Amino acid sequence: MDLKLLSSLAVENDTKVVLVVMDGVGGLAGPEGKTSLEAAHTPNLDALAQSGVCGFHDPIAPGITPGSGPAHIGLFGYHPFQYLIGRGVLDTAGTPFVFEPGDMASRLNFATLAADGTISDRRAGRIPDEEGKRVTDLLAENIKEIEGVQVLLQHVKEYRAAAIFRAKQLDGRLCDSDPQKTGLKPLEVAPTQENPTSEAAKGARLANTFIARAKEVLAGEAKANFVMMRGFDIYDPLPNFCELFKWRACAVAAYPMYKGVAKLAGMRVIEEGQSTVEEELDLVKRELPNTDFLFLHIKKTDSMGEDGNFPGKVEAIEHFDRLLPRLVDLKPDVLCITGDHSTPCSLASHSWHPVPICIAAKTARVDGCQTFGETSFLTGGLGRIRSTDVIPLLLAHAERLMKYGA
Amino acid sequence: MDLKLLSSLAVENDTKVVLVVMDGVGGLAGPEGKTSLEAAHTPNLDALAQSGVCGFHDPIAPGITPGSGPAHIGLFGYHPFQYLIGRGVLDTAGTPFVFEPGDMASRLNFATLAADGTISDRRAGRIPDEEGKRVTDLLAENIKEIEGVQVLLQHVKEYRAAAIFRAKQLDGRLCDSDPQKTGLKPLEVAPTQENPTSEAAKGARLANTFIARAKEVLAGEAKANFVMMRGFDIYDPLPNFCELFKWRACAVAAYPMYKGVAKLAGMRVIEEGQSTVEEELDLVKRELPNTDFLFLHIKKTDSMGEDGNFPGKVEAIEHFDRLLPRLVDLKPDVLCITGDHSTPCSLASHSWHPVPICIAAKTARVDGCQTFGETSFLTGGLGRIRSTDVIPLLLAHAERLMKYGA
Repeated sequence: MDLKLLSSLAVENDTKVVLVVMDGVGGLAGPEGKTSLEAAHTPNLDALAQSGVCGFHDPIAPGITPGSGPAHIGLFGYHPFQYLIGRGVLDTAGTPFVFEPGDMASRLNFATLAADGTISDRRAGRIPDEEGKRVTDLLAENIKEIEGVQVLLQHVKEYRAAAIFRAKQLDGRLCDSDPQKTGLKPLEVAPTQENPTSEAAKGARLANTFIARAKEVLAGEAKANFVMMRGFDIYDPLPNFCELFKWRACAVAAYPMYKGVAKLAGMRVIEEGQSTVEEELDLVKRELPNTDFLFLHIKKTDSMGEDGNFPGKVEAIEHFDRLLPRLVDLKPDVLCITGDHSTPCSLASHSWHPVPICIAAKTARVDGCQTFGETSFLTGGLGRIRSTDVIPLLLAHAERLMKYGA
Repeated sequence: MDLKLLSSLAVENDTKVVLVVMDGVGGLAGPEGKTSLEAAHTPNLDALAQSGVCGFHDPIAPGITPGSGPAHIGLFGYHPFQYLIGRGVLDTAGTPFVFEPGDMASRLNFATLAADGTISDRRAGRIPDEEGKRVTDLLAENIKEIEGVQVLLQHVKEYRAAAIFRAKQLDGRLCDSDPQKTGLKPLEVAPTQENPTSEAAKGARLANTFIARAKEVLAGEAKANFVMMRGFDIYDPLPNFCELFKWRACAVAAYPMYKGVAKLAGMRVIEEGQSTVEEELDLVKRELPNTDFLFLHIKKTDSMGEDGNFPGKVEAIEHFDRLLPRLVDLKPDVLCITGDHSTPCSLASHSWHPVPICIAAKTARVDGCQTFGETSFLTGGLGRIRSTDVIPLLLAHAERLMKYGA
């Protein structure tokens, strides 16, 4: 669906729409032939399925496994191929850092360089937040510009930070310096083979100089004596989610990256404490009166899937199910529960499998689905849609889309 | 899915993928309200359906009936609109003929011309192979070039051959000379109305001169005293299937045209004897260790459908089912069984109906389908996909695709 056309149909009204993303919620059959969703005791999710329309969405296209960035971008209605966001921008967006269009951002991992010039620890012994912040500040004090280009540093978490080069007309299509394995030497940053532009050559030069100067600045550090750069990208603002769909949008998420992707879309992001689902739900209750669209992100389903922890994923789902009445009691006009992608415990990674989705609304054509799960949803009324269809459907169920044509 | 992007995600590993195409396998309800697949006793196909994910693919788009060429091209991942291959190239590709890019190929049917200048037999009495080969050689000896353009001849089967004009910059968008009915005069070859280019005009002139000279050369023949030309096309190589998807690919097929389309995609084609399914399976067993992707083509399901022979199609399906354990015993990581299109016996022709597909793999999200058939697959986990989604899904289930984006 063309965003401009969709936007031209959007109208304002008083409805409230809540989109809950249970990260990585879809799965594969576990020990007893059931997925985590099916093995979990979920009376509240089941009731929601009974009152709504259910089915699946493909995050990108059949067979394609998405990263978290493109998976969310798609759910927010932007085509993930057209709006690909690199890790450097995505990670930084989750911090208080304020981008300017054209900024080149790179993820910065503090690492330990051995005397022989090889990487002995790709995470600098997983230094804690305070330590990571201290060495980031140390770099910021000592490296303010390279070749006349302003260099900005932002701590992200533990051993992770971001470096931003504030120059117009850089090209961020660069290879990482991270060799991905310990015992190897760091790589030179260079333009990707397909895009050897002079702007990319300049970007690579800035990055390599930055790495060399960072090595000097960090020479006295025991663990974080080196940095590796990866996920180079140029910040190019997305069309604004609030303006496109003519609603106020707000994001509640515990993890920086999901706050980041919501911020990139132009949503208002709640920055304060929300480290548990209970805290997140308190914030949802507080913020819903001040917003029209609320994105709530639940992380633990994905973490447990990535760990291959089947009972853990079941418990994360049941935990959310127990809290779901707090959300239902807020009586949003449209309540959509889905995931950004599947994370089957048996694969312990993101996967391509279609993601269960349920849209509960007075305007939904209720199907016969009795339980919230992969097998049950096979006969759901939504069938198999694309993630980019979700926002148009939420707008429609909120009666926020005009008729197309006379 | 963009082929270049898909290719950029493909990685090598040790998995084996087998794609079985039961030509024309989908059908319509027969005498007892069941399709051929449903009427057939297929315990082995049913077991596969129970262990995999099932559904349908549309060969081209809803409502569109494909020829064998576009149907296979789509299954191999190439968009059939973007990569349309004409019959002239398709038929010739199934022979040992070696194309050069830019060759203009036309199917050549030997025919009988009556004294009044009308076609009395469009197949020259279905002359046998030896006879067809003799008259093809006769043409080759006598017509080596026209207007300085090299003319090459290749016998295909019985009364069918191919003529290839080796010139760069011809335009093959030409109308057939075959009037499609006996008792009519052959048509002049001419550029299609939509494409009256000067290159097409030259192509048409070469073709008409060829037909006139062939008539002189064949004047003494009792049956094959004339040729008709159809399916003009320019040979334009496809992106290589093995390079795109980073695997070794091999084709086992009994009929030349299916070997041809696999060869056009760049697969290694087994040329030797494989006239029965049993012989084909022997070759699969021999070749699987030397390949990563194996395409196995089963012809008889389509032939029986085209003949409107319902019991014959049931028997062709049951015959394959009895042999299926030989394939399962080879333990491919991904085993996909589908058709290239439907061929309902009641229509006695290819049709537009969605084609049943089952993907069996450890990584499949098993659905509740208990039997291999059109009604059962309606609640399958694949839903309704496009034929071009099949290769991405096979790669995904073989864990041969990297994550898209961070």
